[in-house]
Amino acid sequence: MKVLIIGGGGVIGQKLARKLAHRGHLRGAEIAHMTLADVVNPAPITAGFPVDVVRVDISDRASVDELIAGRYDVIYLLAAIVSAHAEEDFDAGMNINLFGSYHVFEAVRALGTKPVIVFSSSVAVYGGEVPDPIEDHTFLNPQTSYGTQKAIGELLLNDFSRKGYFDGRGFRLPTISVRPGKPNRAASSFMSSIIREPLNGEEAICPVGPDFMHPYLSPRKCVENLILGTEVAAEDLGQNRCMMMPGRAWSIQQLVDAMTRVAGPEPAKLIKWQEDAAIQAIVNGWRYDLNAQKALRLGLSADDSFEDNVSYYIEDDRP
Amino acid sequence: MKVLIIGGGGVIGQKLARKLAHRGHLRGAEIAHMTLADVVNPAPITAGFPVDVVRVDISDRASVDELIAGRYDVIYLLAAIVSAHAEEDFDAGMNINLFGSYHVFEAVRALGTKPVIVFSSSVAVYGGEVPDPIEDHTFLNPQTSYGTQKAIGELLLNDFSRKGYFDGRGFRLPTISVRPGKPNRAASSFMSSIIREPLNGEEAICPVGPDFMHPYLSPRKCVENLILGTEVAAEDLGQNRCMMMPGRAWSIQQLVDAMTRVAGPEPAKLIKWQEDAAIQAIVNGWRYDLNAQKALRLGLSADDSFEDNVSYYIEDDRP
Repeated sequence: MKVLIIGGGGVIGQKLARKLAHRGHLRGAEIAHMTLADVVNPAPITAGFPVDVVRVDISDRASVDELIAGRYDVIYLLAAIVSAHAEEDFDAGMNINLFGSYHVFEAVRALGTKPVIVFSSSVAVYGGEVPDPIEDHTFLNPQTSYGTQKAIGELLLNDFSRKGYFDGRGFRLPTISVRPGKPNRAASSFMSSIIREPLNGEEAICPVGPDFMHPYLSPRKCVENLILGTEVAAEDLGQNRCMMMPGRAWSIQQLVDAMTRVAGPEPAKLIKWQEDAAIQAIVNGWRYDLNAQKALRLGLSADDSFEDNVSYYIEDDRP
Repeated sequence: MKVLIIGGGGVIGQKLARKLAHRGHLRGAEIAHMTLADVVNPAPITAGFPVDVVRVDISDRASVDELIAGRYDVIYLLAAIVSAHAEEDFDAGMNINLFGSYHVFEAVRALGTKPVIVFSSSVAVYGGEVPDPIEDHTFLNPQTSYGTQKAIGELLLNDFSRKGYFDGRGFRLPTISVRPGKPNRAASSFMSSIIREPLNGEEAICPVGPDFMHPYLSPRKCVENLILGTEVAAEDLGQNRCMMMPGRAWSIQQLVDAMTRVAGPEPAKLIKWQEDAAIQAIVNGWRYDLNAQKALRLGLSADDSFEDNVSYYIEDDRP
């Protein structure tokens, strides 16, 4: 069993790699080798099997061909230009999110190895003219370039899978919170910052009001769901291999209250409430009333409470 | 007003060109010039304004750039590798249907002229795991590569429009029948052949049973709808610029009965009933219970009866 994680330097990529290293097996086979690929060299991982780290630019087909030539059994495609970045830099979003995914799918097809490919899509594929709640069979009407590129990735994943070129599974991730590390260029970045920075004793800016609703998932649960999604039987996926990953919607106020219940009253005082029209223009197009029936039926799950998300950050990630 | 029809050599492209030549105006302005572009030189059209015919391969970006440099106000993107052909030749479908559309959109964006682009999508975008009836907000779960590529074209059209790069409008065409000319490599080709050939005194093969249901639209009505769709106000399109074009679903038996009512009992005797598993595998994945509410609200319409479709063929196209 050879595993490749594209986007292996990212928060989820690294946590997934460490979890797989700890676990040692996947889809009923021992992991013999793992490669972490990213646009900058990913941090190395200690495991009971060899782990390579490689640099790859997925917008470059030749570079992707060279990577895929490693003949992996399971490929995680987690690399992306995130939402606000893709909105600012249209070409970067298209080149990485659309053509990058296409290059991986085409390289796999050309090699003929038919691996399992697990693709991280996003709830940003939803938006626009569709009624609530969002169901598995709700039209994808994304209102960002990032959401558009992810929706296209899903269509390609489904068609390449239908043709038998690989066994694809796509999961629309809710916003991952509490995400460790630094803020990034996702419009949703504040949805971790307003918890993470205060828990680290630092100030954070909240660009939306306390009533803003959004679906969340902890990184720990996300990794568990990705592994479950890798192991589910192909015949249980049906004609649409992409689905929502379960999350749970809370208001910003509920997030802050959960933090206070776990860590006391001091962190919440470090949040600066400062509305930002550019961020709001993106995030107000996102939907939160999501019914992840298919994934729930397959055994994936959401966090029980946001207190869990806060506790996981403190246990797993706080410096 | 300069008009470009990409796919201007096809059945709908030619009929649209003749209709525009006859009409002389579009979106409140006189047509000063029209270009018909296709992979083979389109038949020339007589009009009260100059009409060019040019060869273009839209899978080649440089060739598209050269074409788009003509600075058109309205561009019809009707060119496609049709369903059964795209299913057989995966690369051809991707190169024309996906990358061809992308090249047109990108060339227009690079030029900065912000034209109206009218894109022909297909009801083949529907399929898979969605409940009947198909509504405007039904998930696109295509079960062919052609449907996948059209669904991707729609997503791109929406996003480029949202970004202000052009004013896109996409219409999911029902099967056009009675389509004049020769059979093509669309899996739906028989849906015209079984009427057209008998009306021309020739035999035709029907690869499905008489109960097979499908939505149809006459070429004459399709062209009227495309022109209406070009002229509707951008603000009436909302957040999803792609919609079903109205059609009406009939069984094969109803088509044949309509032909008999219009043209007498002889033509129906020329139909050979010969089931074809490969054709059925494609067309049985298509949906027919379609509710084109948005387009109907905007003034587009379906044919009143299949007798009309038969009569239009006899009036407009029979050799």
